[in-house]
Amino acid sequence: MEFKASMIAGFLHGTIEGDPDVTVSAFAKIEEGYPGALSFLANPKYEKYLYETASSIVIINKTQKLDQAVKCTLIRVDDAYRSFASLLELYASQQQEKSGREEPVSVASSATLGENIFIGAFTYIADHAKIGDHVKIHPQVYIGENVSIGENTVLYPGVKIYRDCIIGSDCVIHSGAVIGADGFGFAPQTDADYKKIPQIGNVVIEDRVEIGANTCIDRATMGSTIIRRGVKLDNLIQVAHNVEIGENTVIASQSGISGSCKVGRNCMFAGQVGLAGHLVIADGVKIGAQSGINSSITKPDSAILGSPGMNYQDCIKSYVVVRRLPDLKKRVDELERMIKSNQ
Amino acid sequence: MEFKASMIAGFLHGTIEGDPDVTVSAFAKIEEGYPGALSFLANPKYEKYLYETASSIVIINKTQKLDQAVKCTLIRVDDAYRSFASLLELYASQQQEKSGREEPVSVASSATLGENIFIGAFTYIADHAKIGDHVKIHPQVYIGENVSIGENTVLYPGVKIYRDCIIGSDCVIHSGAVIGADGFGFAPQTDADYKKIPQIGNVVIEDRVEIGANTCIDRATMGSTIIRRGVKLDNLIQVAHNVEIGENTVIASQSGISGSCKVGRNCMFAGQVGLAGHLVIADGVKIGAQSGINSSITKPDSAILGSPGMNYQDCIKSYVVVRRLPDLKKRVDELERMIKSNQ
Amino acid sequence: MEFKASMIAGFLHGTIEGDPDVTVSAFAKIEEGYPGALSFLANPKYEKYLYETASSIVIINKTQKLDQAVKCTLIRVDDAYRSFASLLELYASQQQEKSGREEPVSVASSATLGENIFIGAFTYIADHAKIGDHVKIHPQVYIGENVSIGENTVLYPGVKIYRDCIIGSDCVIHSGAVIGADGFGFAPQTDADYKKIPQIGNVVIEDRVEIGANTCIDRATMGSTIIRRGVKLDNLIQVAHNVEIGENTVIASQSGISGSCKVGRNCMFAGQVGLAGHLVIADGVKIGAQSGINSSITKPDSAILGSPGMNYQDCIKSYVVVRRLPDLKKRVDELERMIKSNQ
Repeated sequence: MEFKASMIAGFLHGTIEGDPDVTVSAFAKIEEGYPGALSFLANPKYEKYLYETASSIVIINKTQKLDQAVKCTLIRVDDAYRSFASLLELYASQQQEKSGREEPVSVASSATLGENIFIGAFTYIADHAKIGDHVKIHPQVYIGENVSIGENTVLYPGVKIYRDCIIGSDCVIHSGAVIGADGFGFAPQTDADYKKIPQIGNVVIEDRVEIGANTCIDRATMGSTIIRRGVKLDNLIQVAHNVEIGENTVIASQSGISGSCKVGRNCMFAGQVGLAGHLVIADGVKIGAQSGINSSITKPDSAILGSPGMNYQDCIKSYVVVRRLPDLKKRVDELERMIKSNQ
Repeated sequence: MEFKASMIAGFLHGTIEGDPDVTVSAFAKIEEGYPGALSFLANPKYEKYLYETASSIVIINKTQKLDQAVKCTLIRVDDAYRSFASLLELYASQQQEKSGREEPVSVASSATLGENIFIGAFTYIADHAKIGDHVKIHPQVYIGENVSIGENTVLYPGVKIYRDCIIGSDCVIHSGAVIGADGFGFAPQTDADYKKIPQIGNVVIEDRVEIGANTCIDRATMGSTIIRRGVKLDNLIQVAHNVEIGENTVIASQSGISGSCKVGRNCMFAGQVGLAGHLVIADGVKIGAQSGINSSITKPDSAILGSPGMNYQDCIKSYVVVRRLPDLKKRVDELERMIKSNQ
Repeated sequence: MEFKASMIAGFLHGTIEGDPDVTVSAFAKIEEGYPGALSFLANPKYEKYLYETASSIVIINKTQKLDQAVKCTLIRVDDAYRSFASLLELYASQQQEKSGREEPVSVASSATLGENIFIGAFTYIADHAKIGDHVKIHPQVYIGENVSIGENTVLYPGVKIYRDCIIGSDCVIHSGAVIGADGFGFAPQTDADYKKIPQIGNVVIEDRVEIGANTCIDRATMGSTIIRRGVKLDNLIQVAHNVEIGENTVIASQSGISGSCKVGRNCMFAGQVGLAGHLVIADGVKIGAQSGINSSITKPDSAILGSPGMNYQDCIKSYVVVRRLPDLKKRVDELERMIKSNQ
């Protein structure tokens, strides 16, 4: 689809400088612009690209001053980033228009299906599952017995949700994510063999949660593994049994949360972080990449880094010394030599 | 389903204190109890919950003394934890009763199917595969050519098993696990390009093995990648080509075992551990979370921690000093200053 | 299938020592040989096995001297490893002979299908997808709208490719890999909630790329996440949005590349490496296992190790001191004591 500058300016309540009839059919970063693309400028660091970009239209802030002539058509708005994001959303929202039921699917007659849902081919919906209105279930998804999916949720191809799990509204779950596999619980036997501890709990995912590709959230032994409203989990994350993750906490790729941890709200974990079992993490805690946390963090809004984790600033200072340890050792060698020769 | 206290006591050969007619329909941790739930008390740390819990029935040890009145019905048994676990098993065992073949499936006519198996919809069973008795193959599973699956094994939705792999009896493989993908082997060419080394071996998984969601076990270049009897692998683990993991070894989530490692029996690896290639790990070795092991561990029952890994106790002591390195450096600075001013 | 020594020698232009009529039907490492197996000897370290092996045929270099009698039949060639590899390739190439379309599949009528392709059961090919000649699409694969797949590419069971992604020729993508899921982009809102930033870019994978099982490559926010020609990615790797990985770079299992990183050509990353966002890594850089890279590496062919990453040799030296830190601290304690007693 092509859009004229005049149409876009109308939608954004912006003003045009340049050719109102120029058209665009794609989005591009301003530094990667090309004819037919729409870009934006919000970060002053990128201002130089405004004069160089090959994009046909650039959305800029009303307050943006121009030092040189520009080749593109400008649309001035109050908040260039926000306006651009709203266009991205408009564009993205038009891509998920599939509805109805493809064939073949396997949908239990005891399942309850909401209005205006999409069910892609090769998807399996087991007995007593409940699917809310406007849910999009892409192909090859598995929805186990008694699973409930809230309205407007999107399940991408190949998502697997084990029995009894509860998924909220407005969630997005990406391909290959596994919700509700057994927690890792085995009781050692006298003969060094292990006996499986049945994992009969479930996973509860509240509203507005996004779960990345191939991320695993295990079901509770008893009770529920709980992902609170607004949580965002990246790809390849492990969430073990009986964990609770607080509202709007964001966790980057390949992090692992061990069993029974209770993570607060508004936390941010970078990638490849690991938490040992049964820890409590206060609200607003930030944990740096590859950190290994082996004790609870009780102070809200702490910044933590390292394996084992410590105060962020202290860790940075320790790292500086670690890099120069061979030098420090030599200095101690020399001090010993001097002291001894003095005696 | 609802169960009366009297029925449960009968099954467990226990004795009732309280109302024998009270019913339960769910399990709960004692600290999360609610009316209609069954709990247990084994760990003295949780004793206070015995007097507070809202659970309708609590299973306790015969020897448990009561300091206060309890609101719930008690069932006294020899070993409360074991009795509770046996009820969990009974409950869990009643949930996997599906059998027969759903439609559509794709089962090669040359495949051999045992008695009383379940094949879920959209599952694919290739030529010459052999499926043992009582195997449960959930929907959307892929079983390649010549694969053999031992009796009573459960494959959860979306498991993928490449050709020629052998899976034992009484195994559980969770969703998204990939068994038998090509090992990561490429021969560098003179032009900085790589040539793929064909991976023509297989994976052999012995009996009573559990494999977590989205875990990957690569096929051998030649011969077999071997997972011995009783091994338990958590989610998102990488097992590279030609690895062998010894009996009853337990590995937690997101650990990675590089090519040709030979891990002993009864080892325990915590989460996010990494092993370099071609290492030999003795029996009974314990490795702490996020450790990076770059040389073989020859002493049985060693405890190892750190990246690079070292003796566990030494590592803990080193970590204490690492945290205070900036302070140690200042002390060395001060010593140098003093020595020089003394000279 | 069985092959006589004479046939193999003929194919390899080699010369036979021993029984030209002995047959083999399998490959084995020389140290794991058994009757009916074919092995090779190239590495002098393994020479002792030449006299012990139970393999029926061993391929050796023309120049190989014999210190003892051998039990097996020998085939002498110019380059034993290369000859053996060519037999492995011949063997492997004969295993992927499936073609045609199994049933049921879901293939959009607007999709373009090349010549001589294989489409396994339960595979989904969406509108306007383009599949090149000789492509093998195994069962349960998902190919989204407008996806393009180059010729000879192999997609193993359960691969998921989101809309608009472009896959080159001669690629291999293993089970469970997810190509083109949304990048992890959320804009914080004033109420500590997050708003999803639509991810409307795609993934471009060039020719001769291999991608391991359950690896995730996210689509770009705008533009493309790019995997250049000849790149080899192992299992369970995370490649975030807008990353570019240069030609023939090889990355081992469980490594994670954060958003907008630009990795050079011919790099080698070991397992469990992490890169922070927006870094530039020069060509030919080698990064050791579990390293955490938090700043760009501008010098080509650098060797880096550690978390945070540093020069490889410096890191090894620091690690030596880290292991003995408690000892170093004691020496500083002692120096302080001596100095003070001297004053």
